[in-house]
Amino acid sequence: MELNLWVEKIRGGDVRLLARGLSEIENRGPRSRALLSALFPHSGQARVIGLTGAPGAGKSTVVSALALEFRKREKRVAILAVDPTSPFTGGSILGDRIRMQAHDADGGVYIRSMATRGSLGGLAPTAADVLVALDAAGFDVILIETVGVGQAEVDVVRIAGAVALLLTPSSGDDVQTMKAGIMEVADVFVINKADLPGADRLESELRAMLSIQPVGAGLPILRTVATAGQGIDKLAEALLDIDSAHAGSADYWRHRLTEMVSEKLMDRLVRGSLSEEHLAVAARQVAVREANPYELVDELVRGLLTGRPLEPECE
Amino acid sequence: MELNLWVEKIRGGDVRLLARGLSEIENRGPRSRALLSALFPHSGQARVIGLTGAPGAGKSTVVSALALEFRKREKRVAILAVDPTSPFTGGSILGDRIRMQAHDADGGVYIRSMATRGSLGGLAPTAADVLVALDAAGFDVILIETVGVGQAEVDVVRIAGAVALLLTPSSGDDVQTMKAGIMEVADVFVINKADLPGADRLESELRAMLSIQPVGAGLPILRTVATAGQGIDKLAEALLDIDSAHAGSADYWRHRLTEMVSEKLMDRLVRGSLSEEHLAVAARQVAVREANPYELVDELVRGLLTGRPLEPECE
Repeated sequence: MELNLWVEKIRGGDVRLLARGLSEIENRGPRSRALLSALFPHSGQARVIGLTGAPGAGKSTVVSALALEFRKREKRVAILAVDPTSPFTGGSILGDRIRMQAHDADGGVYIRSMATRGSLGGLAPTAADVLVALDAAGFDVILIETVGVGQAEVDVVRIAGAVALLLTPSSGDDVQTMKAGIMEVADVFVINKADLPGADRLESELRAMLSIQPVGAGLPILRTVATAGQGIDKLAEALLDIDSAHAGSADYWRHRLTEMVSEKLMDRLVRGSLSEEHLAVAARQVAVREANPYELVDELVRGLLTGRPLEPECE
Repeated sequence: MELNLWVEKIRGGDVRLLARGLSEIENRGPRSRALLSALFPHSGQARVIGLTGAPGAGKSTVVSALALEFRKREKRVAILAVDPTSPFTGGSILGDRIRMQAHDADGGVYIRSMATRGSLGGLAPTAADVLVALDAAGFDVILIETVGVGQAEVDVVRIAGAVALLLTPSSGDDVQTMKAGIMEVADVFVINKADLPGADRLESELRAMLSIQPVGAGLPILRTVATAGQGIDKLAEALLDIDSAHAGSADYWRHRLTEMVSEKLMDRLVRGSLSEEHLAVAARQVAVREANPYELVDELVRGLLTGRPLEPECE
């Protein structure tokens, strides 16, 4: 399909061609770069909202309820469900996916799951590109849902303009869990399942933790009972208040440009001097101390930069 | 100091010069590459053991007890305590550090804390290099302790030849926590604080989870009460049984070589065409859609690969 037509169809709301485009991007296919470059100028309008929290915090239910809330407000909504963990968690994610199919009857909510890992650039860079495409496709709100609260998830939600961290009174470890770097990226804290005992205690613990952070004391703490739709309207408001639009800040793009350059350089290298076979041989030599990795890497990089891959030292 | 002498002193057990070398490596100082290259041929003998687990699992106590156990066996022991999280967790880590100072009187245990983050290559690559240096310094056993169970920690313990995942009966969320990709890297599961109620239940849950993994059913589950030194000898045995030596497998070096090349390329790029000022300008342009990041990145990479070499050619 001709590129401009493809872009036009995606922008016109053709969900099938959008899905095909997203697959091309996720797989880093041959047309991925051209497609992204053509879509990019049309991006920058969507509100991008990240939702994260420990397993069991009710993320999918909150995302689902938020999607409905934004639909009520006549917004076109996309959900990007990101699973950076192993196939081991497949079961629970599958459950969430099925649960979220409820939206499929509603033409206004588009759901996309990403489970790829281990691509050259990692999960977060791919998610960032997928987001550019969803943004250009004209969704007003894009909700990114992650599975856990590890580093990969932090990297992913960092893409969003507004990030909500979900906690529940039922899990005593939530405030502990937050230590893993997630505090710094959260703009709104949500105590979900707030009808359970312990919500007050959780809120005090949270406020205590936030109060010793530079900007923490001013951050909103909201309560929801997502299964009953309670508190979702206020959460939607709070999130819209924060996020301007996914034009992305200059700070965001500094990070992202560096990441993109790195990915492209590695891609060039892999297609050039660092073939799979060559890498395998080198790795075996290093493992038995027949080669020095620090010298090897210098040679490889020198080869790539001077256009004479793997030739011996200059004489 | 002359490089060969520096290496010789480090290998001879000079702790002050080792510390200076580790700082040079952590900071990616000007002599880091030469030092590592010179140390590398002397590495490959140490047993490298990774210990991870949720906060509160008693990692520092277990590491401490293991260090004593290995000392009893006449091993020289180093502990590398890695903290990939924010300054926000500084308090608890500091506590652990102070607790571990108990070993300082014992000449055989060397303790090093790493808290750097955000260097070009990230935490795990730096830890991998620090390990090469500790290994070359002649430690028989190197214990790597991480703070949590996020992706950064998984990356760090992956460097180790044997990985123990610590759980406790007191935390109901432990088995949940394990979903975050940590299961795949663990060789031994340790139920610490095994004198608390719930140890049996935790072990059954764990066995159930492991049984559905390809190699999970065969993995050892041990019980310890680290504060009382119970079970530590068996744990030490189990860990030594697994880990051959940190020569590193060919698989490990495939990953590590790729990572090293990537770091070096980015370093070259940053010192060349992608200066901080240039990056800042580009990022602002992209944020307001005056520049297309996909085209920009192509230009940068083309410039680096074809244009002007960033360092004088060999004469």
